[in-house]
Amino acid sequence: MATTAKSVADVCAEARVASRALATASDAVKDAALEAMASALETRLDEILEANARDMEAGAEAGLAPALLDRLRLDGERVAAIAAGVRAIAALPDPVGEVLEGWRLESGLEMRKVRVPLGVVAVVYEARPNVTIDCSALCLKSGNAIVLRGSSSATHSNAVLAEVAASAVESAGLPRAAVSLVAGGGRSELAELATQEGVVDLIIPRGGEGLKAALQEVATVPVIYAAAGNCHVFVDAGADLDMAERIVLNAKVQRPGVCNSAETLLVHADAAPEFLPRVLRALREAGVELRVDARARALAGELADTLGEATEEDWATEYLALILAVRVVDSAEEAIDHVNRYGSGHSEAIVTDSTASAERFTHAVDAACVYVNASTRFTDGGVFGMGAEIGNSTQKLHARGPVAVRELTTYKYVAEGTGQIRE
Amino acid sequence: MATTAKSVADVCAEARVASRALATASDAVKDAALEAMASALETRLDEILEANARDMEAGAEAGLAPALLDRLRLDGERVAAIAAGVRAIAALPDPVGEVLEGWRLESGLEMRKVRVPLGVVAVVYEARPNVTIDCSALCLKSGNAIVLRGSSSATHSNAVLAEVAASAVESAGLPRAAVSLVAGGGRSELAELATQEGVVDLIIPRGGEGLKAALQEVATVPVIYAAAGNCHVFVDAGADLDMAERIVLNAKVQRPGVCNSAETLLVHADAAPEFLPRVLRALREAGVELRVDARARALAGELADTLGEATEEDWATEYLALILAVRVVDSAEEAIDHVNRYGSGHSEAIVTDSTASAERFTHAVDAACVYVNASTRFTDGGVFGMGAEIGNSTQKLHARGPVAVRELTTYKYVAEGTGQIRE
Repeated sequence: MATTAKSVADVCAEARVASRALATASDAVKDAALEAMASALETRLDEILEANARDMEAGAEAGLAPALLDRLRLDGERVAAIAAGVRAIAALPDPVGEVLEGWRLESGLEMRKVRVPLGVVAVVYEARPNVTIDCSALCLKSGNAIVLRGSSSATHSNAVLAEVAASAVESAGLPRAAVSLVAGGGRSELAELATQEGVVDLIIPRGGEGLKAALQEVATVPVIYAAAGNCHVFVDAGADLDMAERIVLNAKVQRPGVCNSAETLLVHADAAPEFLPRVLRALREAGVELRVDARARALAGELADTLGEATEEDWATEYLALILAVRVVDSAEEAIDHVNRYGSGHSEAIVTDSTASAERFTHAVDAACVYVNASTRFTDGGVFGMGAEIGNSTQKLHARGPVAVRELTTYKYVAEGTGQIRE
Repeated sequence: MATTAKSVADVCAEARVASRALATASDAVKDAALEAMASALETRLDEILEANARDMEAGAEAGLAPALLDRLRLDGERVAAIAAGVRAIAALPDPVGEVLEGWRLESGLEMRKVRVPLGVVAVVYEARPNVTIDCSALCLKSGNAIVLRGSSSATHSNAVLAEVAASAVESAGLPRAAVSLVAGGGRSELAELATQEGVVDLIIPRGGEGLKAALQEVATVPVIYAAAGNCHVFVDAGADLDMAERIVLNAKVQRPGVCNSAETLLVHADAAPEFLPRVLRALREAGVELRVDARARALAGELADTLGEATEEDWATEYLALILAVRVVDSAEEAIDHVNRYGSGHSEAIVTDSTASAERFTHAVDAACVYVNASTRFTDGGVFGMGAEIGNSTQKLHARGPVAVRELTTYKYVAEGTGQIRE
């Protein structure tokens, strides 16, 4: 781990040098480093909790909100979960060196397209100290050096955790500078980090909209932004209404504060008279505030008076709370248009018994993940079988959807010849 | 094609709408549009040459350099080559809809990772009017709408060619706005185009460093920059010297003005005494100006006095001319370090008879294309079998190396269930 006296540019330059060794490290060596990291989390638990206690104390004094303090807090159970996560990452197949394609040119050149690490990945994050280890482990497995820039509220926790990670890497014979922490949560450090083009290959922000906006303003290094999830469930004509109700409730209620939860329910006019009264009642009973269009209200029966009015703004809002907008549409086409107009391209679901509607929806909806007869809540690198994720991309370039170890790689073409020249 | 009265934002918004239809168009329909495009280039040849003659006349009056005028010029043969290129693109397999992976989750969800178009691609280019058709055809095949912004010197040529392309698209039943040309080569149009985030998905500049710098300053839309090619050939100890000489000459001389030509020759100290005198003589005879380090000069024999001195600046320069820098190194490691320090990550070659050196070089050199016993000159989408290329990327994110139809796509996850919810 770099000491805090170094400039951000120096830390990044050392990470660049370290990345050369990481790029050619074997899977066995990387896994040994990861196992050392997991073990050290266990053997150095007291030290970690002590550092965290200092952050918690400072946070309480500074009047941090209870939710923020909870994110900051570590305990034995949480550290054990972090260590288990590291071991799960070690158990993933090594993405580096995978031959994506191979072919032979007319000239006899043997071509291979081979997966290789990006080089240096910077992660900029807020309170949660577990990110220090989670992201270090993902970058190590994918052969990348990592430069971490945490928030000042987690200074002591992050310092110990980054030291644990760097020492583990070193114990496996890899360069210590493979994991570095830049000190200081200030905007000038962020700007310096975000302009290390040619040294840092990618920046991943893990935090709120303020952090993203700050990065967008200054970054010359490529950034993968995890955009908001304004997700929809569309219940088609002829849908199995029991299934539809189960999916709508799950997508809205199971964990409303995350980006793959649903924010708007679209119901086909043919299904609405039977479906709306029951689903609105069930949602109300689950504590969901409902904001509906005029057609939905007209079908809501005795609930009509208790429903809010959906405005243009509601269609575009990611509530991240127990609120749901509801609209009646006349066709799958109209639902698709609504989703493509207001959605953020994250996770979209159709409930239908029509293969034609399912095909149309999955083809025409422009989103990272499109579900047929399933909840939007499945969008997650772990659930998808990709291992832990570093975030979820709604961009189209490079990585779309969950960003896990493979998404932290690029490729190179290797051409082997016997003296070929271009005529 | 959009009329010139529309704002850049309007043109892009219409392209966005058109992109929805393109994304779900069948390969047969796209190929019909491409065939119509190729045919119209033939049947409307007079009209095209007439428009081009007006640009040529204006260019001559404005005192354009002969090289620029040559790039601007169309004739029957050149237009026929453009039409043949369009038909070659039609003959490529459709990248859209390719299932990249498929698997089943524990919950029973059937997952597919499917290749889909990006949406709207903008291409910003300079004199060459052939780019209008080449890029329209590549975008059409990959299911993307294209917004073209050419240079003012090619106004009339580009207008006719874009009209030909848009009419061809329309004749196949696809929206005319799939191909649009924004008028005006001014900086304000460029800035407006480069900030259409959420409407334009990608900008590809095809032009000089000035154009790239102008884009870098204003773009909020993702850009794939085709960086310079500072490429190397490393001749290892024990290399077949006949093969090495052939490769060095080909890499430097065959077409020195392109980005995959070599700019620096690195020679292992063990091979240098025998190899340098002969290769330097051969290069001199081919008209190459040589800039060498002290060790190379000491081995150059009678040629020593005719050689320039390589400075730090030479190692970092992409000459794009008949100039070659030459350096003696003590090991493959030293060659790799030189390449990673000064190279631009484009195309790098080793000539060696050692499998260990070949493996070390291909693993450790950080470049889009790495060659063993072959010339750097092979880096090209067409040569690689990817079809025509829209450019060559030295970035690591999204696309590295040749950018052809597949690189103009992204992917989505499609999950088909039977009512699954997240527990």
